[in-house]
Amino acid sequence: MRFHVLTLFPDMVCQALSYSIIGRAQQAGIVEIHAVDIRDFSCNKHHRVDDYPYGGGNGMVMEPGPVYGAYESLAAPPGTRVVFLTPQGRPFCQEMAKEFSQEEELIVLCGHYEGVDERVIEEIVTDEVSLGDFVLTGGELGAIVLIDAVSRLLPGVLKGPESYEEESFTGNALEYPQYTRPPEFRGRKVPEVLLSGHHEKVAQWRREQSLIRTYEKRPDLYEKIALTSKERQFMEEYLKNKHQ
Amino acid sequence: MRFHVLTLFPDMVCQALSYSIIGRAQQAGIVEIHAVDIRDFSCNKHHRVDDYPYGGGNGMVMEPGPVYGAYESLAAPPGTRVVFLTPQGRPFCQEMAKEFSQEEELIVLCGHYEGVDERVIEEIVTDEVSLGDFVLTGGELGAIVLIDAVSRLLPGVLKGPESYEEESFTGNALEYPQYTRPPEFRGRKVPEVLLSGHHEKVAQWRREQSLIRTYEKRPDLYEKIALTSKERQFMEEYLKNKHQ
Repeated sequence: MRFHVLTLFPDMVCQALSYSIIGRAQQAGIVEIHAVDIRDFSCNKHHRVDDYPYGGGNGMVMEPGPVYGAYESLAAPPGTRVVFLTPQGRPFCQEMAKEFSQEEELIVLCGHYEGVDERVIEEIVTDEVSLGDFVLTGGELGAIVLIDAVSRLLPGVLKGPESYEEESFTGNALEYPQYTRPPEFRGRKVPEVLLSGHHEKVAQWRREQSLIRTYEKRPDLYEKIALTSKERQFMEEYLKNKHQ
Repeated sequence: MRFHVLTLFPDMVCQALSYSIIGRAQQAGIVEIHAVDIRDFSCNKHHRVDDYPYGGGNGMVMEPGPVYGAYESLAAPPGTRVVFLTPQGRPFCQEMAKEFSQEEELIVLCGHYEGVDERVIEEIVTDEVSLGDFVLTGGELGAIVLIDAVSRLLPGVLKGPESYEEESFTGNALEYPQYTRPPEFRGRKVPEVLLSGHHEKVAQWRREQSLIRTYEKRPDLYEKIALTSKERQFMEEYLKNKHQ
Protein backbone atom coordinates (compact mmCIF):
# COMPACT_ATOMS: atom_id res chain seq x y z
CA MET A 1 0.00 0.00 0.00
CA ARG A 2 1.18 3.47 -0.86
CA PHE A 3 0.69 6.53 1.35
CA HIS A 4 1.24 10.03 -0.01
CA VAL A 5 1.52 12.58 2.76
CA LEU A 6 1.05 16.27 1.90
CA THR A 7 2.90 18.06 4.67
CA LEU A 8 5.11 20.97 5.71
CA PHE A 9 7.31 18.51 7.66
CA PRO A 10 8.16 15.62 5.34
CA ASP A 11 11.20 14.53 7.39
CA MET A 12 9.16 14.29 10.56
CA VAL A 13 6.65 11.98 8.90
CA CYS A 14 9.27 9.76 7.26
CA GLN A 15 11.45 9.49 10.37
CA ALA A 16 8.63 8.61 12.73
CA LEU A 17 7.56 5.78 10.43
CA SER A 18 11.07 4.42 9.84
CA TYR A 19 11.28 2.42 13.09
CA SER A 20 10.22 -1.01 14.23
CA ILE A 21 7.33 -2.78 12.54
CA ILE A 22 6.44 -0.07 10.03
CA GLY A 23 10.11 0.50 9.20
CA ARG A 24 10.45 -3.22 8.40
CA ALA A 25 7.21 -3.17 6.40
CA GLN A 26 8.72 -0.43 4.23
CA GLN A 27 11.94 -2.37 3.76
CA ALA A 28 9.88 -5.41 2.77
CA GLY A 29 8.06 -3.28 0.20
CA ILE A 30 4.63 -3.86 1.76
CA VAL A 31 4.24 -0.21 2.68
CA GLU A 32 5.51 2.80 0.77
CA ILE A 33 5.49 6.25 2.35
CA HIS A 34 5.89 9.20 0.07
CA ALA A 35 5.99 12.60 1.73
CA VAL A 36 5.36 15.64 -0.45
CA ASP A 37 6.58 19.00 0.83
CA ILE A 38 3.76 21.51 0.37
CA ARG A 39 6.34 24.29 0.54
CA ASP A 40 7.77 23.13 -2.80
CA PHE A 41 4.52 24.31 -4.38
CA SER A 42 4.59 27.81 -3.00
CA CYS A 43 4.38 30.52 -5.69
CA ASN A 44 6.12 32.91 -3.35
CA LYS A 45 9.84 33.57 -3.55
CA HIS A 46 10.11 33.20 0.24
CA HIS A 47 8.37 29.81 0.01
CA ARG A 48 5.58 31.16 2.13
CA VAL A 49 2.52 28.90 2.23
CA ASP A 50 0.28 30.73 4.70
CA ASP A 51 -1.39 34.12 4.87
CA TYR A 52 -3.70 36.15 7.13
CA PRO A 53 -7.29 35.00 7.42
CA TYR A 54 -9.98 36.98 5.58
CA GLY A 55 -12.23 38.59 8.14
CA GLY A 56 -9.42 38.92 10.68
CA GLY A 57 -8.49 36.80 13.64
CA ASN A 58 -5.40 35.25 15.13
CA GLY A 59 -2.94 33.02 13.39
CA MET A 60 -2.29 32.19 9.79
CA VAL A 61 -4.19 30.07 7.32
CA MET A 62 -2.60 27.70 4.80
CA GLU A 63 -3.17 29.00 1.27
CA PRO A 64 -5.15 26.79 -1.09
CA GLY A 65 -2.66 27.00 -4.00
CA PRO A 66 0.39 25.19 -2.58
CA VAL A 67 -1.79 22.42 -1.08
CA TYR A 68 -3.52 21.95 -4.40
CA GLY A 69 -0.20 21.99 -6.25
CA ALA A 70 1.15 19.25 -3.98
CA TYR A 71 -1.99 17.20 -4.56
CA GLU A 72 -1.91 17.72 -8.32
CA SER A 73 1.74 16.66 -8.50
CA LEU A 74 0.71 13.15 -7.48
CA ALA A 75 -1.51 12.71 -10.54
CA ALA A 76 -3.46 10.24 -8.43
CA PRO A 77 -5.90 7.91 -10.19
CA PRO A 78 -9.51 9.15 -9.97
CA GLY A 79 -11.22 7.82 -6.86
CA THR A 80 -8.07 7.97 -4.71
CA ARG A 81 -9.20 8.95 -1.25
CA VAL A 82 -7.77 12.06 0.36
CA VAL A 83 -7.83 12.07 4.14
CA PHE A 84 -7.60 15.37 6.00
CA LEU A 85 -6.70 15.23 9.69
CA THR A 86 -8.89 17.73 11.51
CA PRO A 87 -10.73 17.95 14.84
CA GLN A 88 -13.80 18.40 12.64
CA GLY A 89 -13.58 14.89 11.23
CA ARG A 90 -15.10 11.53 12.06
CA PRO A 91 -13.27 10.07 15.07
CA PHE A 92 -10.63 7.58 13.93
CA CYS A 93 -11.32 3.99 15.01
CA GLN A 94 -10.24 0.46 14.22
CA GLU A 95 -13.08 -0.03 11.73
CA MET A 96 -11.87 2.99 9.78
CA ALA A 97 -8.30 1.65 9.85
CA LYS A 98 -9.59 -1.63 8.35
CA GLU A 99 -11.51 0.27 5.71
CA PHE A 100 -8.48 2.34 4.66
CA SER A 101 -6.28 -0.79 4.61
CA GLN A 102 -8.33 -1.98 1.61
CA GLU A 103 -7.06 0.93 -0.50
CA GLU A 104 -4.04 0.66 -2.75
CA GLU A 105 -3.16 4.33 -2.42
CA LEU A 106 -4.15 6.86 0.18
CA ILE A 107 -3.41 10.57 0.24
CA VAL A 108 -3.13 12.19 3.67
CA LEU A 109 -3.23 15.99 4.03
CA CYS A 110 -1.70 17.50 7.17
CA GLY A 111 -2.91 20.93 8.20
CA HIS A 112 -0.94 23.45 10.22
CA TYR A 113 -1.25 26.97 11.60
CA GLU A 114 -4.82 28.01 12.42
CA GLY A 115 -6.25 26.01 9.57
CA VAL A 116 -6.35 25.33 5.86
CA ASP A 117 -8.28 27.43 3.37
CA GLU A 118 -11.71 25.83 3.17
CA ARG A 119 -11.84 25.85 -0.61
CA VAL A 120 -8.97 23.43 -1.14
CA ILE A 121 -10.52 21.10 1.42
CA GLU A 122 -13.78 21.19 -0.53
CA GLU A 123 -11.85 20.66 -3.74
CA ILE A 124 -9.76 17.59 -2.88
CA VAL A 125 -10.64 16.02 0.49
CA THR A 126 -12.84 12.91 0.56
CA ASP A 127 -12.53 11.97 4.25
CA GLU A 128 -12.21 14.28 7.26
CA VAL A 129 -10.78 12.29 10.13
CA SER A 130 -10.17 13.33 13.73
CA LEU A 131 -7.71 11.57 15.98
CA GLY A 132 -9.78 12.43 19.04
CA ASP A 133 -11.17 15.33 21.02
CA PHE A 134 -7.87 17.05 21.62
CA VAL A 135 -5.81 19.66 19.79
CA LEU A 136 -2.37 19.01 18.27
CA THR A 137 0.16 21.44 16.82
CA GLY A 138 -0.35 19.99 13.34
CA GLY A 139 -1.82 17.19 11.30
CA GLU A 140 1.49 15.29 10.98
CA LEU A 141 1.05 13.34 14.21
CA GLY A 142 -2.44 12.33 13.17
CA ALA A 143 -1.14 11.21 9.79
CA ILE A 144 1.60 9.13 11.41
CA VAL A 145 -0.85 7.47 13.78
CA LEU A 146 -3.29 6.74 10.97
CA ILE A 147 -0.58 5.27 8.73
CA ASP A 148 0.70 3.11 11.59
CA ALA A 149 -2.76 1.77 12.46
CA VAL A 150 -3.60 1.06 8.82
CA SER A 151 -0.22 -0.43 7.86
CA ARG A 152 -0.14 -2.99 10.64
CA LEU A 153 -3.33 -4.51 9.22
CA LEU A 154 -1.72 -5.26 5.84
CA PRO A 155 -0.87 -8.91 5.20
CA GLY A 156 2.75 -9.66 6.08
CA VAL A 157 3.32 -6.68 8.36
CA LEU A 158 2.68 -8.50 11.64
CA LYS A 159 4.24 -11.90 12.09
CA GLY A 160 1.46 -14.45 12.58
CA PRO A 161 -1.99 -14.13 11.03
CA GLU A 162 -3.22 -14.38 14.64
CA SER A 163 -1.10 -11.50 15.87
CA TYR A 164 -3.74 -8.88 15.43
CA GLU A 165 -6.76 -11.05 15.91
CA GLU A 166 -6.35 -11.64 19.62
CA GLU A 167 -5.86 -8.02 20.42
CA SER A 168 -7.76 -5.17 21.94
CA PHE A 169 -11.07 -4.33 20.30
CA THR A 170 -11.44 -7.73 18.75
CA GLY A 171 -14.89 -8.74 19.87
CA ASN A 172 -14.99 -5.51 21.92
CA ALA A 173 -13.42 -7.00 25.07
CA LEU A 174 -10.17 -5.48 26.33
CA GLU A 175 -7.10 -7.68 26.54
CA TYR A 176 -6.38 -9.87 29.56
CA PRO A 177 -3.30 -9.10 31.70
CA GLN A 178 0.01 -10.48 30.44
CA TYR A 179 2.86 -11.97 32.47
CA THR A 180 6.33 -13.17 31.61
CA ARG A 181 9.45 -14.18 33.55
CA PRO A 182 10.42 -13.92 36.37
CA PRO A 183 7.69 -15.76 38.30
CA GLU A 184 8.07 -13.26 41.13
CA PHE A 185 8.76 -9.54 40.71
CA ARG A 186 9.01 -7.21 43.71
CA GLY A 187 6.85 -9.55 45.73
CA ARG A 188 4.21 -9.88 43.03
CA LYS A 189 3.61 -13.38 41.73
CA VAL A 190 2.34 -14.58 38.38
CA PRO A 191 -1.23 -15.92 38.81
CA GLU A 192 -0.94 -19.66 39.44
CA VAL A 193 -3.32 -20.75 36.74
CA LEU A 194 -0.88 -19.44 34.11
CA LEU A 195 1.80 -21.80 35.42
CA SER A 196 -0.57 -24.79 35.50
CA GLY A 197 -0.12 -25.85 31.88
CA HIS A 198 -3.88 -26.44 31.77
CA HIS A 199 -4.80 -24.76 28.48
CA GLU A 200 -8.52 -24.74 29.00
CA LYS A 201 -8.27 -23.17 32.44
CA VAL A 202 -5.79 -20.58 31.15
CA ALA A 203 -8.19 -19.66 28.35
CA GLN A 204 -11.09 -19.41 30.77
CA TRP A 205 -9.15 -17.27 33.25
CA ARG A 206 -8.02 -14.94 30.48
CA ARG A 207 -11.53 -14.53 29.14
CA GLU A 208 -12.82 -13.79 32.63
CA GLN A 209 -10.10 -11.22 33.28
CA SER A 210 -10.85 -9.69 29.96
CA LEU A 211 -14.54 -9.37 30.83
CA ILE A 212 -13.85 -7.90 34.28
CA ARG A 213 -11.43 -5.34 32.86
CA THR A 214 -13.79 -4.29 30.13
CA TYR A 215 -16.61 -3.99 32.64
CA GLU A 216 -14.49 -1.87 34.97
CA LYS A 217 -12.63 0.27 32.48
CA ARG A 218 -14.86 0.55 29.45
CA PRO A 219 -18.53 -0.09 30.30
CA ASP A 220 -19.41 1.27 26.85
CA LEU A 221 -17.50 -1.59 25.20
CA TYR A 222 -18.70 -4.15 27.74
CA GLU A 223 -22.28 -3.60 26.67
CA LYS A 224 -21.41 -4.75 23.17
CA ILE A 225 -19.83 -8.07 24.20
CA ALA A 226 -21.79 -11.23 23.45
CA LEU A 227 -21.66 -13.43 26.58
CA THR A 228 -22.26 -17.15 26.83
CA SER A 229 -24.58 -18.18 29.65
CA LYS A 230 -21.54 -19.41 31.61
CA GLU A 231 -19.81 -16.06 31.20
CA ARG A 232 -22.95 -14.21 32.20
CA GLN A 233 -23.12 -16.36 35.35
CA PHE A 234 -19.47 -15.62 36.13
CA MET A 235 -20.00 -11.88 35.82
CA GLU A 236 -23.12 -11.97 37.98
CA GLU A 237 -21.10 -13.74 40.64
CA TYR A 238 -18.28 -11.21 40.26
CA LEU A 239 -20.64 -8.28 40.70
CA LYS A 240 -22.38 -9.85 43.68
CA ASN A 241 -19.04 -10.32 45.49
CA LYS A 242 -17.89 -6.86 44.50
CA HIS A 243 -20.88 -5.13 46.00
CA GLN A 244 -20.80 -7.05 49.27
CA MET B 1 7.76 21.05 31.98
CA ARG B 2 9.81 17.91 31.83
CA PHE B 3 8.72 14.70 30.11
CA HIS B 4 10.54 11.44 30.74
CA VAL B 5 9.68 8.83 28.14
CA LEU B 6 10.42 5.18 28.91
CA THR B 7 10.70 3.59 25.48
CA LEU B 8 12.44 1.08 23.24
CA PHE B 9 12.71 3.77 20.55
CA PRO B 10 14.16 6.90 22.14
CA ASP B 11 15.31 8.39 18.82
CA MET B 12 11.85 8.08 17.34
CA VAL B 13 10.32 10.00 20.23
CA CYS B 14 12.96 12.75 20.25
CA GLN B 15 12.97 13.23 16.49
CA ALA B 16 9.21 13.45 16.13
CA LEU B 17 9.10 16.17 18.80
CA SER B 18 12.03 18.16 17.42
CA TYR B 19 10.05 19.99 14.72
CA SER B 20 7.97 23.12 14.53
CA ILE B 21 6.23 24.44 17.63
CA ILE B 22 7.38 21.75 20.08
CA GLY B 23 10.92 21.87 18.70
CA ARG B 24 10.99 25.62 19.37
CA ALA B 25 9.47 25.12 22.83
CA GLN B 26 12.40 22.83 23.64
CA GLN B 27 14.93 25.33 22.34
CA ALA B 28 13.26 27.99 24.48
CA GLY B 29 13.59 25.73 27.51
CA ILE B 30 9.83 25.60 28.15
CA VAL B 31 9.65 21.88 27.41
CA GLU B 32 12.28 19.25 28.10
CA ILE B 33 12.01 15.79 26.61
CA HIS B 34 14.13 13.09 28.12
CA ALA B 35 13.88 9.67 26.51
CA VAL B 36 15.12 6.69 28.51
CA ASP B 37 16.00 3.54 26.56
CA ILE B 38 14.40 0.60 28.40
CA ARG B 39 16.89 -1.69 26.67
CA ASP B 40 19.71 -0.11 28.70
CA PHE B 41 18.16 -1.78 31.76
CA SER B 42 18.08 -5.30 30.38
CA CYS B 43 19.89 -7.83 32.57
CA ASN B 44 20.43 -10.00 29.55
CA LYS B 45 23.68 -9.99 27.59
CA HIS B 46 21.73 -9.77 24.32
CA HIS B 47 19.84 -6.73 25.67
CA ARG B 48 16.63 -8.66 25.38
CA VAL B 49 13.69 -6.99 27.13
CA ASP B 50 10.84 -9.32 26.23
CA ASP B 51 9.97 -12.94 26.84
CA TYR B 52 7.21 -15.47 26.11
CA PRO B 53 3.92 -15.00 27.92
CA TYR B 54 3.12 -17.31 30.84
CA GLY B 55 0.14 -19.43 29.89
CA GLY B 56 1.09 -19.41 26.19
CA GLY B 57 -0.19 -17.33 23.31
CA ASN B 58 1.23 -15.32 20.46
CA GLY B 59 3.79 -12.60 20.67
CA MET B 60 6.16 -11.49 23.34
CA VAL B 61 5.62 -9.63 26.58
CA MET B 62 7.89 -6.88 27.91
CA GLU B 63 9.62 -8.05 31.09
CA PRO B 64 8.95 -6.11 34.28
CA GLY B 65 12.62 -5.72 35.30
CA PRO B 66 13.96 -3.47 32.52
CA VAL B 67 10.88 -1.23 32.64
CA TYR B 68 11.23 -0.90 36.39
CA GLY B 69 14.96 -0.24 36.08
CA ALA B 70 14.31 2.57 33.58
CA TYR B 71 11.72 4.06 35.92
CA GLU B 72 13.97 3.77 38.97
CA SER B 73 16.85 5.48 37.14
CA LEU B 74 14.80 8.69 37.07
CA ALA B 75 14.64 8.89 40.87
CA ALA B 76 11.43 10.85 40.33
CA PRO B 77 10.00 12.80 43.26
CA PRO B 78 7.21 10.93 45.02
CA GLY B 79 3.84 11.74 43.47
CA THR B 80 5.22 12.06 39.92
CA ARG B 81 2.56 10.72 37.62
CA VAL B 82 3.39 7.81 35.33
CA VAL B 83 1.22 7.60 32.23
CA PHE B 84 0.96 4.29 30.39
CA LEU B 85 -0.36 4.40 26.84
CA THR B 86 -2.73 1.46 26.39
CA PRO B 87 -6.03 0.72 24.66
CA GLN B 88 -7.22 -0.14 28.17
CA GLY B 89 -6.89 3.42 29.40
CA ARG B 90 -9.18 6.41 29.73
CA PRO B 91 -9.62 8.01 26.30
CA PHE B 92 -7.28 10.97 25.92
CA CYS B 93 -9.09 14.32 25.59
CA GLN B 94 -8.41 18.04 25.85
CA GLU B 95 -9.42 18.13 29.51
CA MET B 96 -6.81 15.50 30.30
CA ALA B 97 -4.19 17.44 28.33
CA LYS B 98 -4.99 20.50 30.46
CA GLU B 99 -4.74 18.43 33.62
CA PHE B 100 -1.32 17.02 32.68
CA SER B 101 -0.08 20.47 31.70
CA GLN B 102 -0.29 21.45 35.40
CA GLU B 103 2.45 18.92 36.27
CA GLU B 104 6.11 19.86 36.46
CA GLU B 105 7.30 16.39 35.49
CA LEU B 106 5.49 13.59 33.73
CA ILE B 107 6.72 10.08 33.06
CA VAL B 108 5.33 8.34 30.00
CA LEU B 109 5.72 4.58 29.54
CA CYS B 110 5.47 3.19 26.00
CA GLY B 111 4.53 -0.46 25.64
CA HIS B 112 5.46 -2.70 22.74
CA TYR B 113 5.07 -6.28 21.55
CA GLU B 114 1.93 -7.98 22.80
CA GLY B 115 1.97 -6.11 26.08
CA VAL B 116 3.83 -5.27 29.25
CA ASP B 117 4.03 -7.54 32.29
CA GLU B 118 1.06 -6.56 34.43
CA ARG B 119 3.06 -6.40 37.65
CA VAL B 120 5.26 -3.49 36.62
CA ILE B 121 2.16 -1.61 35.49
CA GLU B 122 0.62 -2.18 38.92
CA GLU B 123 3.88 -1.13 40.53
CA ILE B 124 4.55 2.19 38.82
CA VAL B 125 1.68 3.40 36.60
CA THR B 126 -0.70 6.07 37.93
CA ASP B 127 -2.67 6.84 34.75
CA GLU B 128 -3.66 4.47 31.97
CA VAL B 129 -4.47 6.53 28.89
CA SER B 130 -5.79 5.43 25.52
CA LEU B 131 -5.35 7.47 22.37
CA GLY B 132 -8.56 6.07 20.94
CA ASP B 133 -10.30 2.88 19.90
CA PHE B 134 -7.64 1.74 17.48
CA VAL B 135 -4.48 -0.35 17.72
CA LEU B 136 -0.97 0.98 17.10
CA THR B 137 2.33 -0.89 16.77
CA GLY B 138 3.58 0.64 20.02
CA GLY B 139 3.04 3.26 22.67
CA GLU B 140 5.55 5.73 21.20
CA LEU B 141 3.06 7.38 18.87
CA GLY B 142 0.62 7.81 21.72
CA ALA B 143 3.36 9.33 23.88
CA ILE B 144 4.32 11.77 21.12
CA VAL B 145 0.71 12.84 20.61
CA LEU B 146 0.18 13.28 24.33
CA ILE B 147 3.36 15.32 24.77
CA ASP B 148 2.43 17.51 21.79
CA ALA B 149 -1.10 18.16 23.07
CA VAL B 150 0.11 18.91 26.61
CA SER B 151 3.12 21.03 25.60
CA ARG B 152 1.19 23.41 23.40
CA LEU B 153 -0.88 24.41 26.42
CA LEU B 154 2.16 25.60 28.37
CA PRO B 155 2.57 29.37 28.64
CA GLY B 156 4.88 30.71 25.93
CA VAL B 157 4.59 27.76 23.56
CA LEU B 158 1.93 29.26 21.30
CA LYS B 159 2.34 32.86 20.27
CA GLY B 160 -0.64 34.82 21.55
CA PRO B 161 -2.55 34.01 24.72
CA GLU B 162 -5.58 33.86 22.39
CA SER B 163 -4.02 31.32 20.07
CA TYR B 164 -5.45 28.30 21.73
CA GLU B 165 -8.57 29.87 23.09
CA GLU B 166 -10.41 30.29 19.83
CA GLU B 167 -9.80 26.77 18.72
CA SER B 168 -11.70 23.56 18.33
CA PHE B 169 -13.29 22.24 21.52
CA THR B 170 -13.33 25.59 23.18
CA GLY B 171 -16.92 25.95 24.20
CA ASN B 172 -17.61 22.65 22.42
CA ALA B 173 -18.33 24.21 19.01
CA LEU B 174 -16.13 23.22 16.07
CA GLU B 175 -14.14 25.92 14.33
CA TYR B 176 -15.64 28.03 11.53
CA PRO B 177 -14.19 27.69 8.00
CA GLN B 178 -11.05 29.71 7.29
CA TYR B 179 -10.13 31.56 4.12
CA THR B 180 -7.04 33.40 2.96
CA ARG B 181 -5.75 34.84 -0.31
CA PRO B 182 -6.49 34.61 -3.23
CA PRO B 183 -10.11 35.83 -3.22
CA GLU B 184 -10.94 33.27 -5.92
CA PHE B 185 -9.48 29.77 -6.14
CA ARG B 186 -10.56 27.36 -8.90
CA GLY B 187 -13.85 29.18 -9.26
CA ARG B 188 -14.52 29.16 -5.52
CA LYS B 189 -14.92 32.56 -3.92
CA VAL B 190 -14.30 33.70 -0.38
CA PRO B 191 -17.67 34.37 1.31
CA GLU B 192 -18.47 38.06 0.82
CA VAL B 193 -19.09 38.85 4.45
CA LEU B 194 -15.41 38.17 5.19
CA LEU B 195 -14.40 40.89 2.74
CA SER B 196 -16.88 43.40 4.15
CA GLY B 197 -14.70 44.71 6.96
CA HIS B 198 -17.79 44.64 9.17
CA HIS B 199 -16.42 43.01 12.31
CA GLU B 200 -19.73 42.31 13.95
CA LYS B 201 -21.16 40.62 10.88
CA VAL B 202 -17.96 38.57 10.44
CA ALA B 203 -18.18 37.39 14.05
CA GLN B 204 -21.84 36.49 13.64
CA TRP B 205 -21.26 34.61 10.38
CA ARG B 206 -18.38 32.67 11.94
CA ARG B 207 -20.42 31.72 14.97
CA GLU B 208 -23.28 30.55 12.76
CA GLN B 209 -20.96 28.49 10.57
CA SER B 210 -19.45 27.02 13.67
CA LEU B 211 -22.89 26.01 14.98
CA ILE B 212 -23.96 24.50 11.65
CA ARG B 213 -20.75 22.50 11.36
CA THR B 214 -20.96 21.21 14.87
CA TYR B 215 -24.60 20.25 14.35
CA GLU B 216 -23.81 18.43 11.11
CA LYS B 217 -20.51 16.78 12.03
CA ARG B 218 -20.60 16.29 15.78
CA PRO B 219 -24.16 16.20 17.14
CA ASP B 220 -22.70 14.92 20.42
CA LEU B 221 -20.76 18.17 20.89
CA TYR B 222 -23.60 20.32 19.56
CA GLU B 223 -25.83 19.21 22.41
CA LYS B 224 -23.39 20.70 24.90
CA ILE B 225 -23.26 24.19 23.34
CA ALA B 226 -25.00 26.98 25.21
CA LEU B 227 -27.04 28.97 22.66
CA THR B 228 -28.31 32.52 22.98
CA SER B 229 -31.94 32.97 21.98
CA LYS B 230 -30.81 34.61 18.73
CA GLU B 231 -28.56 31.64 17.95
CA ARG B 232 -31.35 29.23 18.77
CA GLN B 233 -33.60 31.10 16.36
CA PHE B 234 -30.93 30.96 13.65
CA MET B 235 -30.53 27.22 14.01
CA GLU B 236 -34.29 26.64 13.95
CA GLU B 237 -34.43 28.58 10.71
CA TYR B 238 -31.49 26.62 9.31
CA LEU B 239 -33.12 23.30 10.12
CA LYS B 240 -36.46 24.36 8.70
CA ASN B 241 -34.85 25.32 5.38
CA LYS B 242 -32.78 22.19 5.34
CA HIS B 243 -35.74 19.90 5.69
CA GLN B 244 -37.81 21.61 3.02
